[in-house]
Amino acid sequence: MKAVVYNGPRDVAVKNVPDARIERPTDVLVRITTTNICGSDLHMYEGRTDFEQGRIFGHENLGEVIEVGEAVDRVKVGDLVVLPFNIGCGFCKNCEKGLSAFCLTNANPGMAGAAYGFADMGPFQGGQAELLRVPYGDYNCLLLPPDAREKEADYVMVADIFPTGWHATRLAGLCPGESIVIYGAGPVGLMAAYSAMLQGACMVMVVDHHADRLQLAESIGAIAINDSQMNPVERIMELTNGIGADRGCECVGYQCHDHHGKEIPGLTMNNLVKSVKFTGGIGVVGVFVPQDPGAPTKLAKEGEIPFDWGLLWFRGQHVGTGQCNVKAYNRQLRDLISVGRATPSFIVSHHLPLDEAPDAYKNFDERNDGWTKVILHPS
Amino acid sequence: MKAVVYNGPRDVAVKNVPDARIERPTDVLVRITTTNICGSDLHMYEGRTDFEQGRIFGHENLGEVIEVGEAVDRVKVGDLVVLPFNIGCGFCKNCEKGLSAFCLTNANPGMAGAAYGFADMGPFQGGQAELLRVPYGDYNCLLLPPDAREKEADYVMVADIFPTGWHATRLAGLCPGESIVIYGAGPVGLMAAYSAMLQGACMVMVVDHHADRLQLAESIGAIAINDSQMNPVERIMELTNGIGADRGCECVGYQCHDHHGKEIPGLTMNNLVKSVKFTGGIGVVGVFVPQDPGAPTKLAKEGEIPFDWGLLWFRGQHVGTGQCNVKAYNRQLRDLISVGRATPSFIVSHHLPLDEAPDAYKNFDERNDGWTKVILHPS
Amino acid sequence: MKAVVYNGPRDVAVKNVPDARIERPTDVLVRITTTNICGSDLHMYEGRTDFEQGRIFGHENLGEVIEVGEAVDRVKVGDLVVLPFNIGCGFCKNCEKGLSAFCLTNANPGMAGAAYGFADMGPFQGGQAELLRVPYGDYNCLLLPPDAREKEADYVMVADIFPTGWHATRLAGLCPGESIVIYGAGPVGLMAAYSAMLQGACMVMVVDHHADRLQLAESIGAIAINDSQMNPVERIMELTNGIGADRGCECVGYQCHDHHGKEIPGLTMNNLVKSVKFTGGIGVVGVFVPQDPGAPTKLAKEGEIPFDWGLLWFRGQHVGTGQCNVKAYNRQLRDLISVGRATPSFIVSHHLPLDEAPDAYKNFDERNDGWTKVILHPS
Amino acid sequence: MKAVVYNGPRDVAVKNVPDARIERPTDVLVRITTTNICGSDLHMYEGRTDFEQGRIFGHENLGEVIEVGEAVDRVKVGDLVVLPFNIGCGFCKNCEKGLSAFCLTNANPGMAGAAYGFADMGPFQGGQAELLRVPYGDYNCLLLPPDAREKEADYVMVADIFPTGWHATRLAGLCPGESIVIYGAGPVGLMAAYSAMLQGACMVMVVDHHADRLQLAESIGAIAINDSQMNPVERIMELTNGIGADRGCECVGYQCHDHHGKEIPGLTMNNLVKSVKFTGGIGVVGVFVPQDPGAPTKLAKEGEIPFDWGLLWFRGQHVGTGQCNVKAYNRQLRDLISVGRATPSFIVSHHLPLDEAPDAYKNFDERNDGWTKVILHPS
Repeated sequence: MKAVVYNGPRDVAVKNVPDARIERPTDVLVRITTTNICGSDLHMYEGRTDFEQGRIFGHENLGEVIEVGEAVDRVKVGDLVVLPFNIGCGFCKNCEKGLSAFCLTNANPGMAGAAYGFADMGPFQGGQAELLRVPYGDYNCLLLPPDAREKEADYVMVADIFPTGWHATRLAGLCPGESIVIYGAGPVGLMAAYSAMLQGACMVMVVDHHADRLQLAESIGAIAINDSQMNPVERIMELTNGIGADRGCECVGYQCHDHHGKEIPGLTMNNLVKSVKFTGGIGVVGVFVPQDPGAPTKLAKEGEIPFDWGLLWFRGQHVGTGQCNVKAYNRQLRDLISVGRATPSFIVSHHLPLDEAPDAYKNFDERNDGWTKVILHPS
Repeated sequence: MKAVVYNGPRDVAVKNVPDARIERPTDVLVRITTTNICGSDLHMYEGRTDFEQGRIFGHENLGEVIEVGEAVDRVKVGDLVVLPFNIGCGFCKNCEKGLSAFCLTNANPGMAGAAYGFADMGPFQGGQAELLRVPYGDYNCLLLPPDAREKEADYVMVADIFPTGWHATRLAGLCPGESIVIYGAGPVGLMAAYSAMLQGACMVMVVDHHADRLQLAESIGAIAINDSQMNPVERIMELTNGIGADRGCECVGYQCHDHHGKEIPGLTMNNLVKSVKFTGGIGVVGVFVPQDPGAPTKLAKEGEIPFDWGLLWFRGQHVGTGQCNVKAYNRQLRDLISVGRATPSFIVSHHLPLDEAPDAYKNFDERNDGWTKVILHPS
Repeated sequence: MKAVVYNGPRDVAVKNVPDARIERPTDVLVRITTTNICGSDLHMYEGRTDFEQGRIFGHENLGEVIEVGEAVDRVKVGDLVVLPFNIGCGFCKNCEKGLSAFCLTNANPGMAGAAYGFADMGPFQGGQAELLRVPYGDYNCLLLPPDAREKEADYVMVADIFPTGWHATRLAGLCPGESIVIYGAGPVGLMAAYSAMLQGACMVMVVDHHADRLQLAESIGAIAINDSQMNPVERIMELTNGIGADRGCECVGYQCHDHHGKEIPGLTMNNLVKSVKFTGGIGVVGVFVPQDPGAPTKLAKEGEIPFDWGLLWFRGQHVGTGQCNVKAYNRQLRDLISVGRATPSFIVSHHLPLDEAPDAYKNFDERNDGWTKVILHPS
Repeated sequence: MKAVVYNGPRDVAVKNVPDARIERPTDVLVRITTTNICGSDLHMYEGRTDFEQGRIFGHENLGEVIEVGEAVDRVKVGDLVVLPFNIGCGFCKNCEKGLSAFCLTNANPGMAGAAYGFADMGPFQGGQAELLRVPYGDYNCLLLPPDAREKEADYVMVADIFPTGWHATRLAGLCPGESIVIYGAGPVGLMAAYSAMLQGACMVMVVDHHADRLQLAESIGAIAINDSQMNPVERIMELTNGIGADRGCECVGYQCHDHHGKEIPGLTMNNLVKSVKFTGGIGVVGVFVPQDPGAPTKLAKEGEIPFDWGLLWFRGQHVGTGQCNVKAYNRQLRDLISVGRATPSFIVSHHLPLDEAPDAYKNFDERNDGWTKVILHPS
């Protein structure tokens, strides 16, 4: 089968690799029809992780079931399914509690959580390919309704970025009628803003410096704050009568940089503490890593940032972090799409065949104008 | 009246000052019978805050109502009351939600929260004195049952350290049957450990290097971990099968130091991240400040610590911070004392008259052996 | 001043009564500009409660502050305020926890909760009058923004029916993406449906048999189910693939009746149990009473209904009941109106001067076509 | 193998039946060493359900794994395991959320939830036998620590009654420091009382009329209320200063009766509404059924009770119902047993070989003095 393979920093290729296949009686085999490039793929693409050469990318996957193992009960051949990017077992201490991003069964030793085609998250191959093996298929497949073919671009967002954006708002503790600020207008940030609107937020502010992305934020009713043109903290204070936003979301991660492109570890987190009110909540879904040899400062190489702890404590804020437990939200987000109340595909800029993946990675990585979100279609 | 007054760094005196009195129709006047020295008084005592010369200390207060303003409805002369260390109004946006530590009405401009005799928390005098004016008396007095006289040493703990220790466990999200680690075996840390036991924790671990305090921890069923004799993170991993504690509490604050007495900003927080499991929760009630000119490092002078953000995020932990909303817990803790299920006075080492306050401050500040908690009796 | 006074069953009159005035230092005096007739006024109007002759009606009130007591700190003369229908104190055990509908200070002996112009809820006069005395004014006034004059018809809904409808959905435990069924398309039922839409419900079904009210439900995106034309439980099962709604709300109360007008105690509750899925939640804000001498059955005279307890338990449902703690939601609902995300005035059918109250009561009580919600303007 | 088989009303026998065996690749086979008779077995034993002749009893099971299907990953031969009485799949919409008592995969059509040897809950055999087939073994086995052999009488309680009693307190919303009343001092009621003590309740009251059971309640620190000697509601009001208990639990079910043995449907529920404070919570784990042909009243035959709805609503109480999701609590309860903080076996009155089951059923059903809880040992 064809697949998008990692060769090394900023070098991917579409290659022929052995077909994915059923390996365990609980497996399901899926023919991928829609698979996205994710912002977190870029950390691996840029060589800022220990993603191994030869690994297949792709953790935002949707397709048709073509074979099921003999212990699979619920999923049937022919079902159209979207796959949470995290691979859970369904029966470990964490999965049992809904913490499916921290599965103990599928994880590397001493770790928690597994994913398709992801650094440090188990040996599983990605879905930027014609076929994908899904472990524990009954647990890891979300069935789609009959209208799914027409709305694949919406449903595929349920694999990762829509629930991840939603998770950011839940970690922040957003209530209807509250204000929220989102740092980062990339795909996840836009999904966080969109989630906040769907949940009845009163005011949604989005901070970034890419005009095309801020325009998308405005198209869904958010207030765009261009940090290349103004101090975002001051602007937020103006908009909130000097009190700060009720909630805040970090949707950038460890490679955050100012509008000149200079990487400044901790920039977004320290701004968030100042942007959010006393007793407010902050949700952090941007990726941070414990070790980062490519980082610009000594502290950051060790995964540390100079963090404004005194201010956080004084303000009595709380912070939730980590990867999204997709299964905690994917049924409800699917249903919102199905009835037409949510259309997360508004962020999609490109539909491309698998063969154009290398070019797409390059453009997306360079944040070239208009490349907000790329969908690949292997079939 | 006599009162304990701040003269300057490490210098307090018992002086005659004008009597506290009713100033507003919602005020209550209390004759103090029992008032504690708190660990957070020491930050002010040491001159590590901008506490003003001449201010009266004391935010852990209990006494008898001797006069009430004309708008006071519930509280009566003769009532024995314990006073939450935070002063709330009961009707601002935060008090209304139970966030009484972040009252907007009583706070300094641009801030939230007020307290008796506390740096940066409003102009209110402390209760290490013969009399105390209590603003918004109906809101800020907790009535005590008839047995209160005999149990004053227990009930006075409800003013601050018992609910603050309890708050640490709630911020951490402790559930019955879970394990928890407490960094710091001072009065608040011991109260956190005690709270965890009362809530049905499975295993309570307490880290410190003062033998007398660790002994108190063991006396209530906790496991003592002496960090001058072993690496606390390693010990916690041993005790939890390599997984880490379900929950963790920071009960030390910004002046944390190793067992040689060297102040290392961020030491306890970074150890906590390593000591707590993936998806676990951390509650931070130790005081941190946004500006700390006396700090040992450049970062710390700005209230910042080099914080292991990558590890926190990777482990998907959540963090709750800030002063305790005493009123969220004080009724239930009073009732546990009243029926005899809780006796937090087990930490008290000294009962002293007000006049001995200067000596008590000195000994408590030096962590001299056996000085775990001092109660002053002005009357 | 002029006021709407209860003379006896189905008999109200606009009379001259002594002016409301400041009685306690914590009082605020409001000149009422907008005040609604509520569905729960009809229980009193019909003589189905022990509301005393001579009492003034009106618990949905909005107006301008014209005088404040000397202990009032936050509210100022000239402020435009909307008043939660329940009167709380802010410092009793219940108010402190946000349970302001169950205030212990203002209540009748042995009871909890007080309200303006309401049977069994204290001696307080109603606001269908030119002036209203507001006890504990700092706690019981919600300040409105400068645009309030233009949006009085929206903001006055925050006194009761908007938060009460919202409360129904919270008691039911609604999450975004879920389905919900509302029994009753009166003002509260419509507000519950509207609240569910604002919170991101996936499907909102409303059951009633008044065409004008069902049309309003459809106008906000809900699915109307006319129970005079079909079996509502069967229809709900059809719409939910035989599973039942995730959540349900009772917005009718003890005088529920079938579409022939026959009063059948328990009709809506028993239908709800059948309409909601296994493990689903039911919120009950329709008024039920412990004694009802005018009821059609012996059981109902004692406040009892023949309830399908076996089915409720088998389905593992949970039920939340009671009057709305308006202060738990009124700030956020005000803010949604202020930014234009909510316009609850869509239900208003009539704006009338105070003098037309008797006629308005008659029409509203008879559910005459088109009388969905009446606003009175005393000034 | 030998097994306890249902012959008809009040008639069980120990018979030879075909061995339980692995049927699906996800199955686990367990040799039962400890299995209890449960109060809910008595509903079936008395013929008050449609439990089929020939079915094997037993849903409180513990034993050793002797064989695993080829798709089983976590559970190993030789493991000692305790089995939640409900059988879940781990991947349906309900199991995923932790609602394992309402599994949609294993249930009868149109229903939710399955169990071993239980009326209307799927075709699964019970564990009062030498062998038991456990479906979805990785999900349905709780591993026990090495000390399990010595504490089997404690650990077996984790299969049902300990978590069910715990669930009652959670449905009621108990917080530490609160008071709670338990109606019913049978095994589940005693476990609810025990759970409340472990969670830090302030006062635990238990209502029943069997002296031996009330004595057990007192042995763990609860207050016994003998309803054959006093009016329980009045006694609770006395003990709570006329306010009522903060929380209440129903641990009796549809066959509740007064102390003369007369069955009065709804007796406990209506008493609970009167015994619990305004805004209090009630958890109902006693079994109620939608149809009960053997009931004493016409209403009750249809599963209905004359319920004090008006009072419930007036008091603003909330009610949670249904079978316990054992997996929501079983790890933490196991751990409390393991460290010695919980010893639920205090209720055990009899350890018997399997052959004595018929006699044990008879005595337990007749509530003969001293027969509080029977453990059977098939091996």
